[in-house]
Amino acid sequence: MDKKLTFTVIGGDRRQLESIYLLLDMGHRVKVFGFDNLLDGRATLFRRIHEELFNCHVLLLPIPYQDGKGNINIKESDQKITLGEVMKFIEKYKPLVVLGKPDRTFKDLAKEKGIDYLDLTNEEAFAVLNSIPTAEGAIWRAMDETDFTIHGSNILVLGYGRIGKSLSRMLKGIGAKVTVVARRRDDLAWIIENGYTAVHLKDLEDILPSQNIIFNTIPHLIMDRKKLLRVDKRAVIIDLSSYPGGVDFNAARELNLKASLDLGLPGKVAPKTAAEIIIKVMMDSLQERMT
Amino acid sequence: MDKKLTFTVIGGDRRQLESIYLLLDMGHRVKVFGFDNLLDGRATLFRRIHEELFNCHVLLLPIPYQDGKGNINIKESDQKITLGEVMKFIEKYKPLVVLGKPDRTFKDLAKEKGIDYLDLTNEEAFAVLNSIPTAEGAIWRAMDETDFTIHGSNILVLGYGRIGKSLSRMLKGIGAKVTVVARRRDDLAWIIENGYTAVHLKDLEDILPSQNIIFNTIPHLIMDRKKLLRVDKRAVIIDLSSYPGGVDFNAARELNLKASLDLGLPGKVAPKTAAEIIIKVMMDSLQERMT
Amino acid sequence: MDKKLTFTVIGGDRRQLESIYLLLDMGHRVKVFGFDNLLDGRATLFRRIHEELFNCHVLLLPIPYQDGKGNINIKESDQKITLGEVMKFIEKYKPLVVLGKPDRTFKDLAKEKGIDYLDLTNEEAFAVLNSIPTAEGAIWRAMDETDFTIHGSNILVLGYGRIGKSLSRMLKGIGAKVTVVARRRDDLAWIIENGYTAVHLKDLEDILPSQNIIFNTIPHLIMDRKKLLRVDKRAVIIDLSSYPGGVDFNAARELNLKASLDLGLPGKVAPKTAAEIIIKVMMDSLQERMT
Amino acid sequence: MDKKLTFTVIGGDRRQLESIYLLLDMGHRVKVFGFDNLLDGRATLFRRIHEELFNCHVLLLPIPYQDGKGNINIKESDQKITLGEVMKFIEKYKPLVVLGKPDRTFKDLAKEKGIDYLDLTNEEAFAVLNSIPTAEGAIWRAMDETDFTIHGSNILVLGYGRIGKSLSRMLKGIGAKVTVVARRRDDLAWIIENGYTAVHLKDLEDILPSQNIIFNTIPHLIMDRKKLLRVDKRAVIIDLSSYPGGVDFNAARELNLKASLDLGLPGKVAPKTAAEIIIKVMMDSLQERMT
Repeated sequence: MDKKLTFTVIGGDRRQLESIYLLLDMGHRVKVFGFDNLLDGRATLFRRIHEELFNCHVLLLPIPYQDGKGNINIKESDQKITLGEVMKFIEKYKPLVVLGKPDRTFKDLAKEKGIDYLDLTNEEAFAVLNSIPTAEGAIWRAMDETDFTIHGSNILVLGYGRIGKSLSRMLKGIGAKVTVVARRRDDLAWIIENGYTAVHLKDLEDILPSQNIIFNTIPHLIMDRKKLLRVDKRAVIIDLSSYPGGVDFNAARELNLKASLDLGLPGKVAPKTAAEIIIKVMMDSLQERMT
Repeated sequence: MDKKLTFTVIGGDRRQLESIYLLLDMGHRVKVFGFDNLLDGRATLFRRIHEELFNCHVLLLPIPYQDGKGNINIKESDQKITLGEVMKFIEKYKPLVVLGKPDRTFKDLAKEKGIDYLDLTNEEAFAVLNSIPTAEGAIWRAMDETDFTIHGSNILVLGYGRIGKSLSRMLKGIGAKVTVVARRRDDLAWIIENGYTAVHLKDLEDILPSQNIIFNTIPHLIMDRKKLLRVDKRAVIIDLSSYPGGVDFNAARELNLKASLDLGLPGKVAPKTAAEIIIKVMMDSLQERMT
Repeated sequence: MDKKLTFTVIGGDRRQLESIYLLLDMGHRVKVFGFDNLLDGRATLFRRIHEELFNCHVLLLPIPYQDGKGNINIKESDQKITLGEVMKFIEKYKPLVVLGKPDRTFKDLAKEKGIDYLDLTNEEAFAVLNSIPTAEGAIWRAMDETDFTIHGSNILVLGYGRIGKSLSRMLKGIGAKVTVVARRRDDLAWIIENGYTAVHLKDLEDILPSQNIIFNTIPHLIMDRKKLLRVDKRAVIIDLSSYPGGVDFNAARELNLKASLDLGLPGKVAPKTAAEIIIKVMMDSLQERMT
Repeated sequence: MDKKLTFTVIGGDRRQLESIYLLLDMGHRVKVFGFDNLLDGRATLFRRIHEELFNCHVLLLPIPYQDGKGNINIKESDQKITLGEVMKFIEKYKPLVVLGKPDRTFKDLAKEKGIDYLDLTNEEAFAVLNSIPTAEGAIWRAMDETDFTIHGSNILVLGYGRIGKSLSRMLKGIGAKVTVVARRRDDLAWIIENGYTAVHLKDLEDILPSQNIIFNTIPHLIMDRKKLLRVDKRAVIIDLSSYPGGVDFNAARELNLKASLDLGLPGKVAPKTAAEIIIKVMMDSLQERMT
C-alpha cells in the first residue's frame, strides 16, 4: 500500500510505542496521545485530548483496549481517558478503529453509531503470528528456570494449538526431544507428521515422570494434584494458557515443584516484533478492505 | 487393543495386501478374497465368495471401494464381485465395514440395512497421515525429473493444505529454498511461522520465473497458459491435485515444459506405510467406538 | 571475477557438458572437444585435435581425467585422445589444467614441464559440496528400493564423514529416526549435537535388527556376513563407499537381502548441480590464485 | 562401565557440585573437599585436607584447575588449598587426575612424579559437547538483550568452529535467517550445505548493516571500529570468543552499540548439563584406558 495515511495512536504498552515508529518509518502521518517517552519528533504528540486527534484514517487503540476500570488501557503515561470521551469524537470523524478485545459495550456503541472497527484479537493471522514471540518467550523463561540445556532434554508440550505448534517446532529446532499431548486424532496425526512423539491426553500420566520441562497451553486444569505427583522434582512447569490456566499452582507449591504462569509474553520479550505483527495484520486488513 | 478379532479383506491394491500382513502380525484372524499373490499361510484364502467370508468383526474393502464399473475394486486378482453380492451377506453378519469413498448407493444401502461403516477417506487423521507418503512420492518424482538437486533449489508449493504442509517441511528439511503460495491470511501467517517465503496467490506471477520446481496441490486450474508462460524452461512442474487438476497440460506441452500429474502416490511409493496408516486409523477408530 | 576468459573443455560426462553451458552463460569463451551432442552455438566445437584448442586460459579435463586405458575420459563421444597427445600442446600454451584424480604419470609430467594444475578431487570444498548430490542420490535410491516411507523409519548411517553428515541431515529433515555409527569420540559428540542417535562402531550389531534402511559410507568391509545376519529381511542396504566398498555383497545375496552399490551419484542424479560445483570450486580457486 | 569406583572431587564451581550428584547416582563412592553447600549425605565430606581424601581411583579437579593465585580453583567454599599440598598426596596414591587447563607447572610435576592425568579441555569431544550449552547460553543472552524475536531476524555468526556450528544450527531451528562468515573454503562449503548464507570474511562489511544480532566466535579482533561503524544502531553484538575477544568494546561504547562479552556460559546457564558432559567425557576416557 503506497498511499500515505494518517494514524492516531492512543495509549497502549510498548507494542503501541513501537508501532508508532514503524508507521513513521513507512512514511505515514502519526498523531499520538498517552506516551510520555515518545522520542520521535516526526509524530505529533497531543498532551490533552483534542478533536483534531481524531481527524485521521485509522485510530489504533490498545490490546486489550480497556484497563479493568473503564479507561483506555494507557500504560506508558499517567494520562487517563474513558471510552465515552473517545467515542464522541470517533462518531464525528469515523476513522477505522483498530483495537483488541472489544467488549459488548464497545460493540454495541460501534453498531449504533455506525463505526467500523477491526478486532485484532479476532484475526487468526494475528494470533498465529503472536505465537512466535510467545513461544520464544516461553523458551527464554525455560532457559532462566533450568540448570540444564533444552538440547537433549525431554520436553512436553500440552496442547497443539497455535502456541503448541510454534513452541514444539522451535524446541525441536534447538535439539530437544519433544513430546506433544493432544486429544484430537487429527492433531495427533500432525504431531507424528512433524516428528514429535504423539501422546493422547488420556495417557498423560504415563509419560510425566520422564519429562524435564513441561509447557502447558491448554486453558483448563490439566496439571491437577494427581498429575503433579507424577512430575520429576527437578522438572520445570511453565503455564502459557490464559485464565484460569492449566496448572494447580497451590498443589505445585506444596509439592515443591517449580511452576510459573507466563502471560503476555510477546509484549514482554519482543515488543518490536509484537508491533510489527500489529502493523502487518492491520495493513493487510486495510488492503483487503480497499480492494 | 489386545482383543483378537476376525477381519475379512476383500480386494484392493498393494495397500490392502500389506494390511493383511500387518493384521496377521498383530495376531488377528484374517479371511481374504481377491488376492492371487498372497503368500502368507496364516490367512484363510477364499477362492470364491462364500457366506463364511462375512462371518467377521470387520470387513475391509478397498479405497476407493468401487472400480468405475460397479465392482468391488479388486486390483491384485482378476476375480470380480459386485456391491450387491457383497451386501446380502453383510446384511446377515453385520460386520463393521471399513472402506474408502462410499458413494450415495452405498450410503443409502447402509442406512436402509442398518450397516455400520467407517469411511477412511472421511477421516481427517487418515488424510493427514497420507500426506506423508504423498509428499515423499512427490519428492521422489521431482528427483527423477530434474538434473539438479533439491538442496539449494527454489521450490514453489502451490497451496498449504495437508500435502502442501508435509511437502514444504520435507523440502526445507532437504535444503531447498521453499516458497509457498496461499490465499488465506492465516495460512500465510503459518507459512511465515514455518520459515518459508509466503506469497499471496495474487502475486504468483511475479515469482514464477525464478522457481526450479513447482508442486501444485490446489485442485483447480491455477497454472493456466498465462502463468505457464512465466515458468522457466528448465523448471519441472508436478501436479499432485486431484481431478481436474491445477495445470493446463496441453499448454504445458505446447510450451515445451516438463509437467506431470501424480495421483495415488502413497500406494505407489510406499504401500507398506500406506497399509500401516489404514490399520492405525481403523484401529484407533475401533478403539474409540468400543470405549 | 568479471574478467572474461577462454576455457577449453575436453571430454568428460554430463557434468562437463553442463559446465560448458554454465561457462557460456557467464560470458566466457569456450572451446570444446569430445561432445557429440553439444547444442549450444556459442561454443566453438572442434571435431579433431588442433593446436588452437589449447590456446586458452584454462583447460578443463574430466573427473577422473583418464579412463582405465590411457585415454582422456571422454563419455559423450566416441572420439579418443591420449594424455600424450594433449600434453605436447599444453606444454606449448601452458593453460591452467583443471582435472580430477591426476595419477603419478600426470603429476610427474606436470612437474617436469612446469604445468600448473588444479586437482578438483583434492579440494576439500569440492568434496563437501559433492556430498549434497550424493546424499540426495542416495535418498532417491532408497525411495526406489523401499515400499515404506523414509519419514518415521529407523535409518542407519555408517560413518560420519562428508557424505554421512549431509545424508543424516537430509534424512532427519524428511522425518526419519536417524542413528549414526562412528568410532571417534569427537564424531560421536557431533552426532549427539546434531540430534541423531550416536552409536559406537563396536556396538553396531546391537542396533542392526531394528534398522529399516542402512546406508554405508565407510570404505572398508563393515557389513560382513556376521553383521548381515543381524539385518532385518525387509531392510534395504545402500553402499555409498568407494572401492572396495563396505558390504559383503555375496553374503547379502545368499541371505536374500536387498543391497546395492551406488557410485558416482552426483553425475547421475544431478549433473547440472555437479557442474555448478565444478565451476564454483574452479572459479574460487582461480580467484585465489589471482589475488 | 559397571565397576564401582572411588572418586574424589576437590573444589570447582557448580559443575563439579552437579558432577558429585551424578557420580553418586551412578553408584560410585565419592569423597569431597571444598563444597559448603553439598546436601547429599551419600558423599563423604572432608572439612580439612586429609591423606585419606586421596585414596581414590580418580581425582576430579576444577576447570580450570587453578585460580589465578596458585590455589586450586574452589568456588563453592572459602577453603583454600595449593597445588603443592595436593601433589604430595597424589604422588603417594597415584589416582588418575582429571582436570582442566593444566599449566606447565602441573605438567612438569606430573611427568616428574609419573602421575597420569586427563586434561578435559584438551578433549575434542568435551569441547564439542560444551558448544551446546554455550550456544544455548548465547541465545538466552540474545533474548535478554533484544526487543525482537530471533525468529525472522537476520543473524550473523562470525566463525564456524564448534560454537559457530552449534549456534547456527539452533538459530536456524528457531527460525532465524542465519548468515555465517568464515574464511576457509571448506568451511564456506559446509555453511552452504547446512543451508545458511555463506559469506567470506573479506566481504563482512557488505552484510553488516542488515544484521539484527551479531555473534562473534573468532578469538581475535574482527569487529574493529571500522566494522562497528557499519552495524545497525538497534543491533545487538554478543562476543563469545575467549580473551582477548573479537570486539572493540571501547569503540562499541562510543558508538552507542549494545555489545557484551559472554564467557563461561555452560557453567552459568546449564551447570547440570555441563556436569553431565564432564562425567560423560571422563567415563568414556576411563573406559578407553581400561580396554
